[in-house]
Amino acid sequence: MAPHAEADSGSLHGDGQSNGHQAAVAATATRELFTVNSSNVTYTDNEILSKYTYRTTDVAKDESGKFVVTPVETVYEFKTERKVPKTGMMLVGLGGNNGTTVTAGIIANRRGLTWQTREGVRAANYYGSVIMSSTIKLGTDTKTRKDVNIPFSDILPMVHPNDLVIGGWDISGLNLAEAMDRAQVLEPTLKQQVAKEMAQIVPLPSIYYPDFIAANQEDRADNVLPGTKACNEHVEQIRKDIRDFKEKNGLDKVIVQWTANTERYAELIAGVNDTADNLLKAIEQGHEEVSPSTVFSVAMKSALVDFLINAGIKLTSIASYNHLGNNDGKNLSSQKQFRSKEISKSNVVDDMVEANTVLYKEGEHPDHCVVIKYMPGVGDNKRALDEYYAEIFMGGHQTISMFNVCEDSLLASPLIIDLVLVAEMMTRIQWKATSVDEAAGKGFKGFHSVLSVLSYMLKAPLTPPGTPVVNALAKQRSALTNIFRACVGLEPESDMTLEHKLF
Amino acid sequence: MAPHAEADSGSLHGDGQSNGHQAAVAATATRELFTVNSSNVTYTDNEILSKYTYRTTDVAKDESGKFVVTPVETVYEFKTERKVPKTGMMLVGLGGNNGTTVTAGIIANRRGLTWQTREGVRAANYYGSVIMSSTIKLGTDTKTRKDVNIPFSDILPMVHPNDLVIGGWDISGLNLAEAMDRAQVLEPTLKQQVAKEMAQIVPLPSIYYPDFIAANQEDRADNVLPGTKACNEHVEQIRKDIRDFKEKNGLDKVIVQWTANTERYAELIAGVNDTADNLLKAIEQGHEEVSPSTVFSVAMKSALVDFLINAGIKLTSIASYNHLGNNDGKNLSSQKQFRSKEISKSNVVDDMVEANTVLYKEGEHPDHCVVIKYMPGVGDNKRALDEYYAEIFMGGHQTISMFNVCEDSLLASPLIIDLVLVAEMMTRIQWKATSVDEAAGKGFKGFHSVLSVLSYMLKAPLTPPGTPVVNALAKQRSALTNIFRACVGLEPESDMTLEHKLF
Amino acid sequence: MAPHAEADSGSLHGDGQSNGHQAAVAATATRELFTVNSSNVTYTDNEILSKYTYRTTDVAKDESGKFVVTPVETVYEFKTERKVPKTGMMLVGLGGNNGTTVTAGIIANRRGLTWQTREGVRAANYYGSVIMSSTIKLGTDTKTRKDVNIPFSDILPMVHPNDLVIGGWDISGLNLAEAMDRAQVLEPTLKQQVAKEMAQIVPLPSIYYPDFIAANQEDRADNVLPGTKACNEHVEQIRKDIRDFKEKNGLDKVIVQWTANTERYAELIAGVNDTADNLLKAIEQGHEEVSPSTVFSVAMKSALVDFLINAGIKLTSIASYNHLGNNDGKNLSSQKQFRSKEISKSNVVDDMVEANTVLYKEGEHPDHCVVIKYMPGVGDNKRALDEYYAEIFMGGHQTISMFNVCEDSLLASPLIIDLVLVAEMMTRIQWKATSVDEAAGKGFKGFHSVLSVLSYMLKAPLTPPGTPVVNALAKQRSALTNIFRACVGLEPESDMTLEHKLF
Amino acid sequence: MAPHAEADSGSLHGDGQSNGHQAAVAATATRELFTVNSSNVTYTDNEILSKYTYRTTDVAKDESGKFVVTPVETVYEFKTERKVPKTGMMLVGLGGNNGTTVTAGIIANRRGLTWQTREGVRAANYYGSVIMSSTIKLGTDTKTRKDVNIPFSDILPMVHPNDLVIGGWDISGLNLAEAMDRAQVLEPTLKQQVAKEMAQIVPLPSIYYPDFIAANQEDRADNVLPGTKACNEHVEQIRKDIRDFKEKNGLDKVIVQWTANTERYAELIAGVNDTADNLLKAIEQGHEEVSPSTVFSVAMKSALVDFLINAGIKLTSIASYNHLGNNDGKNLSSQKQFRSKEISKSNVVDDMVEANTVLYKEGEHPDHCVVIKYMPGVGDNKRALDEYYAEIFMGGHQTISMFNVCEDSLLASPLIIDLVLVAEMMTRIQWKATSVDEAAGKGFKGFHSVLSVLSYMLKAPLTPPGTPVVNALAKQRSALTNIFRACVGLEPESDMTLEHKLF
Repeated sequence: MAPHAEADSGSLHGDGQSNGHQAAVAATATRELFTVNSSNVTYTDNEILSKYTYRTTDVAKDESGKFVVTPVETVYEFKTERKVPKTGMMLVGLGGNNGTTVTAGIIANRRGLTWQTREGVRAANYYGSVIMSSTIKLGTDTKTRKDVNIPFSDILPMVHPNDLVIGGWDISGLNLAEAMDRAQVLEPTLKQQVAKEMAQIVPLPSIYYPDFIAANQEDRADNVLPGTKACNEHVEQIRKDIRDFKEKNGLDKVIVQWTANTERYAELIAGVNDTADNLLKAIEQGHEEVSPSTVFSVAMKSALVDFLINAGIKLTSIASYNHLGNNDGKNLSSQKQFRSKEISKSNVVDDMVEANTVLYKEGEHPDHCVVIKYMPGVGDNKRALDEYYAEIFMGGHQTISMFNVCEDSLLASPLIIDLVLVAEMMTRIQWKATSVDEAAGKGFKGFHSVLSVLSYMLKAPLTPPGTPVVNALAKQRSALTNIFRACVGLEPESDMTLEHKLF
Repeated sequence: MAPHAEADSGSLHGDGQSNGHQAAVAATATRELFTVNSSNVTYTDNEILSKYTYRTTDVAKDESGKFVVTPVETVYEFKTERKVPKTGMMLVGLGGNNGTTVTAGIIANRRGLTWQTREGVRAANYYGSVIMSSTIKLGTDTKTRKDVNIPFSDILPMVHPNDLVIGGWDISGLNLAEAMDRAQVLEPTLKQQVAKEMAQIVPLPSIYYPDFIAANQEDRADNVLPGTKACNEHVEQIRKDIRDFKEKNGLDKVIVQWTANTERYAELIAGVNDTADNLLKAIEQGHEEVSPSTVFSVAMKSALVDFLINAGIKLTSIASYNHLGNNDGKNLSSQKQFRSKEISKSNVVDDMVEANTVLYKEGEHPDHCVVIKYMPGVGDNKRALDEYYAEIFMGGHQTISMFNVCEDSLLASPLIIDLVLVAEMMTRIQWKATSVDEAAGKGFKGFHSVLSVLSYMLKAPLTPPGTPVVNALAKQRSALTNIFRACVGLEPESDMTLEHKLF
Repeated sequence: MAPHAEADSGSLHGDGQSNGHQAAVAATATRELFTVNSSNVTYTDNEILSKYTYRTTDVAKDESGKFVVTPVETVYEFKTERKVPKTGMMLVGLGGNNGTTVTAGIIANRRGLTWQTREGVRAANYYGSVIMSSTIKLGTDTKTRKDVNIPFSDILPMVHPNDLVIGGWDISGLNLAEAMDRAQVLEPTLKQQVAKEMAQIVPLPSIYYPDFIAANQEDRADNVLPGTKACNEHVEQIRKDIRDFKEKNGLDKVIVQWTANTERYAELIAGVNDTADNLLKAIEQGHEEVSPSTVFSVAMKSALVDFLINAGIKLTSIASYNHLGNNDGKNLSSQKQFRSKEISKSNVVDDMVEANTVLYKEGEHPDHCVVIKYMPGVGDNKRALDEYYAEIFMGGHQTISMFNVCEDSLLASPLIIDLVLVAEMMTRIQWKATSVDEAAGKGFKGFHSVLSVLSYMLKAPLTPPGTPVVNALAKQRSALTNIFRACVGLEPESDMTLEHKLF
Repeated sequence: MAPHAEADSGSLHGDGQSNGHQAAVAATATRELFTVNSSNVTYTDNEILSKYTYRTTDVAKDESGKFVVTPVETVYEFKTERKVPKTGMMLVGLGGNNGTTVTAGIIANRRGLTWQTREGVRAANYYGSVIMSSTIKLGTDTKTRKDVNIPFSDILPMVHPNDLVIGGWDISGLNLAEAMDRAQVLEPTLKQQVAKEMAQIVPLPSIYYPDFIAANQEDRADNVLPGTKACNEHVEQIRKDIRDFKEKNGLDKVIVQWTANTERYAELIAGVNDTADNLLKAIEQGHEEVSPSTVFSVAMKSALVDFLINAGIKLTSIASYNHLGNNDGKNLSSQKQFRSKEISKSNVVDDMVEANTVLYKEGEHPDHCVVIKYMPGVGDNKRALDEYYAEIFMGGHQTISMFNVCEDSLLASPLIIDLVLVAEMMTRIQWKATSVDEAAGKGFKGFHSVLSVLSYMLKAPLTPPGTPVVNALAKQRSALTNIFRACVGLEPESDMTLEHKLF
């Protein structure tokens, strides 16, 4: 691929500039940290095969109205592709705050950059990425009997973000160095080191549907495909863009990701032609605008609500006030966008409330209001002011007021990376229900195309029609962890630590 | 039992005055909500026997340094006594804020009382009790495929707090009606309804060791056994008090519980003579003073820290400022008591930090300060002002400031009840490791006398020597839930919901 | 006046039930704490006459563009009626949270009541009333040279709130005991002591103009005059109500006061007929809905903004989020009412910003958003969550986040009393500009009918057309204090204390 | 002194490098914005002479116990030197956070520098300086009748900070470029522009008295005069340093200022020899360590307390928690330093409480605790978490919780500049009490050497023995403003605006 072509196509190749001195963030795609020693697990050159017994509990009522509870076991087989593919990430909104921050962050990590800040030298990292910066318990050390924790990214052979090839679309035609300046997110001392590489990336023309995006975005829209409604020409152009990007960069796979909108789950393009329809559907449907960092603050809310209700405390009202000054805030400040957000967040506590029939009567809910305001003065520094009001023992009250400040795009960007990594990983996992599927002569198949497993990063999570939404954060993380563990034949973590209690 | 004897002995009998119209809080001791239908579970008249396969993961290193991970299964048998005993609860500090609030709260629940407040009528409840007011997922409804959630108190046959017979000791000799007024916790309109019954309870003389209790408590100490150091006479008197209480009230069992100090776990006195030594040891050792409500705020901290670190965010400092104006605060305001508290709370985040080797180098910790001040003006309304400061993606920062107000004793009292309920329950559960113990000719035995399973309510939890401390809240709750589930032969909840993901 | 007539007319006479043991709150109407010894001050039996030199500074520009500054003196004469009249207070919205709280509070103060609360015994007081509970510096003690401070209410002969005769209108016909219960503001133990007296007061039928009051108020409206638009019949009825109230209670004067709406300044009805037109105009004009407690929080904001800008700090954004659950909140939750409030509060900082041309260019303003939400769960306990963001030296930033909780009506009620007291006082003060008015043969006259002197309690203050609005709190208080001082011939307080600096 | 010697001596001359394009911050020392046209004001070439009538109020008691209040007038004459002297500022602690920030800030303002930050370009300014960035009302425009506001710095002919020649002492011998890096206060993009000039400044050796400075400062102390106790040699050396600095830079005057400690008011050295004794006394006495930014937060507290008590609200407790991670915090973290701070801040509310005898009985005070913790993780970003708890009408409560973050040194530095400017100005103002002093044959004299007029910037203000402390912020600002106005013959601002009320 010729360098000049990079600017045209909006792509950026990971060209091995990494100086390697950042061990913690070095690309690890081919390393496997552990092998599972079990008759249920088979390693081939290309695959990990695991036989996994999924244990659940069925509840029925007998004639007297008493519950009869039956433990149930279902045997599944999981097949995980070991080869980490060369992966492209195409961002819708490449020139926005999140798009430029993700891109600059990956470049800086790839090169192991450091830069001066007011508080001293800072080094590139993936803090805030669940996959790259959190750990999970693998098991217990046979000698010390202490927990062995490993990075989340090591449980399965996942793509390393440093290896992603980046491209995408934007309604603004600024190159990414200019767009990064406009975003006002990163330190000048970092920007100057990546500016040259960023300037070579120019977003492809994007689709601009005025009734879908807030009117106040119009002055940005200088890089759009003709037409203001979804049409076949648009579909064809997007398909072609992806195909071209894949070919030019010699990619095995391309992941398309909305940067300002995690509602639209990462669209998986194994081939391109076969699943592009999903992409188009996503474009056509007016999904809500929820930025990943909003998602984060919702997650924090869910963590607190979960804690309180699990502690037997009756939460009676939640007021959630937010303001921010970046383009995401500007887009939200239009009334239509705001209302959709207000609705989506109100559902966050519903499943937790419904599960507690001691505290809440059927249909009873805490009051819940959500406000998001555009305040240019605070820039990318989003503020959340929340109040939780709860009833405790014998008519007492608990009041919690939280004030939360952080750089919106620095919180969102690692979550965007997580979504790409997990979505890519999920395309390499297949399953079958041993007895049922074998009896039916069926083989392995992929996960449901709506990836509820992404809930942990998504929030206001999409789930297949008819299936319950899970908002409780700990449960979402457990689901993701335990499914990945199952793929390598490991049991879910029960947290019982009987070994420390029975002796 | 003659009424006059009640005043002497400091006991209060649950005399069936419950009007029964508070279905949600009615005594349910003999009801069993469900039966488990499994070859691993046997019900006898007196016991539930379950065979349970405990699944863990062993990790070793091969010569190349790569982890070899081996799934391990251990079969246990659990035996749970079904008969709910007539139980006495003896509180050390019966006349304090927590002691009077627990007692008045149980009386009000027993009678189904309601009372006027500024905000309208309130009814007796057990909000804030994990056992009485939170629910757990039992399993999935076979018809609707929805979760079936039941009150935590229904997973095993537990004592209902309404049935507890209450007595105890205090260094102040005020009867409980006077002590309740001094506490300034409950509404006058509630107090007047329970005053007569409360007035009949007078705490037994207690032990007062000046170098163990803050000097500023001296003016309260008008009801003490002679002697200011631990001695055999004290031990004998306490033993006699418990024995007398048990006999007078015809109790099967007495649970002794510190009300101002959850460090000293609930002491279980099945017989009295046999385990009284533990009690004495606890008295002799100068355990730290941590009130259950402090515990609660620590738990909230742990929930937040757990969330942040699990999200890959590097928490760099935690400042935790607290003030309160009740007697617990007065006691803490003395420097010695304060310092012990400062130490204990600093450990809260350690296990979570240690588990994440991506964010923290070995030995690296967030800054952490804890301050507790006595401010008489705020009375029993404790305030906590906390700040969390974290490093996010690429040198960004997140700042969270929390302000938390609640009535200290109304948060603490239901946790004291939980401790008594769970501690009592644990005395009725026995276990054996099927293969090992049977080979050794050993039978069933009790849990370790240091009940780490109480961690969820205790915090800064005591664990058997050499075993790890678990502070993460979700893990503690999981442990408690899953152990109780194991006793009735149910698997731990994996949260995987594969049934909603694979189809 | 026969007792039965009280219920009919909605009046309540101060009948001397005061037990007199509350010295601090005893009626002081006839006492004068001091005499001014000055040739400029004359006391007659009925009046205090003062000659006062008002000193200001004129600024002009000479040809070179340099300011020429000229000190100017104007001599005024003030005439203040010494006799405190028997005064009626008629409240529009007598049955609302504020109306019932004001009424019960005055009854409790009049009788010197005490009542039990969770925190102990409380006694009736006028805390939160600027007039009754704050003090001003009278001067310097000639012996000790220390400041002599006196209650604000003693600077001029003012009505004592205990002596007010209370009546009024409401669209809800509940008697005031029932209405007080609905309000959920006062303690049950206080309510039971005033219930009998409150029950005797029934609001007169009020006017209900649906497009002026939020639609969600309709279910309260069971006590309305026929007709939904302003008309002569309404005017006549209101006039008659006031006249009747005055006659029945033998009053010298009646003050009409909106309780939910301080925009509508206290309407002064010396005779009734002569100024009723003003009342009608106020009814006809759709003034904004701002409750006194909102006013209070605005005042607090103004205090902070004033402080920051006076410290040379450039405030760049203010986000102000509020929620409450009482009827005032319900009324505001309708969009139209909310918008008017949003507009009015945005002006609060304007005059302070305009005065600082170093920090702000012409037309430059801080971002400023105001949100008010109705959250029934919090009841009368209003919450305000504010964030102030400012630029400091060399590009630094200051962030202030405030969380404020208080009982809305307990904050508002004493301010309603203040408005009545000050408004009444102002009707007894007359002035003339000595040289101008005497030359023109004019005598004494009243203050401008729009009483900008009430600004301190009003906020978003009404001022005569063409005159500047003053929002800075300290300036408003200074204005009120110094005008009252001028009436007794005292100079404004310069705070220079040269006596402590020059020696 | 040869230029190369400047680095040795720690001086820095303002060498006219200002590019002049920052009109707002250009040096204005010789400009006079206005002339006062009054028979009481005389301008000579060198002086402004004003005759000023100071009006106060005497209060005595007659036999009946009634106050007799007498207006009093005293005529003063003020003489203000018009020539702005060439002024040196010598900072004790020149290499600390405040010292380096003040120095770099002045250099950047002098040169009109701009620099890149994450949020965009920033320009040098004096935000946070009361003198340079706040305005005062001069008077009323004769044409528009609107207020005419002017920068505070224009009311009298004051030194412009750009014209200050900077030098000083530090126990650390790092040059100021290195020290500025250590401080972690300013942006790298700004630091690189001033680094060369900063590197030329090296602090003079300072005095290090270990029992006066926290022990944890020892590792910084590599630039100290021999001896660890105050002695004549130290005094002589300091005297010599000042004399040398003055001579080398051809200064008219030198102001010595503690940068970490505003308790030690700016020491005025008109000649050097004559007042050096005061300097020595300040060195010898162990004044408390209070940084200017702490002062600021105290001021904010005083603003809020003042507001609440003036609104008739009974503040019952104040909890004030602070943490910071710079060297000031480290110094404070030693127990001894902390205790002195705790004491000083507790006095802040006393005068306001004492003045209100309605709310507080004699000797009654709000609870008040102050905590300052050293948390390295937050660096120079100081956090303050405060709670105010108050009693309102009829036993109600108000709770205010504040969270305040800002860069400590960026708040402190402009206040240090203000202190120097005002202190210098005060040395050029003289006064006499016309009748008394003329009768006694006395002439003009200076202000009391303890400059209580500096209170507004100082807090916990020093006052001459036996005179009252004034903490209320508005009063302090009034005092400063009105004394400066008096010097040019203008009356204090009464805020009465009768012209808008009487017509």
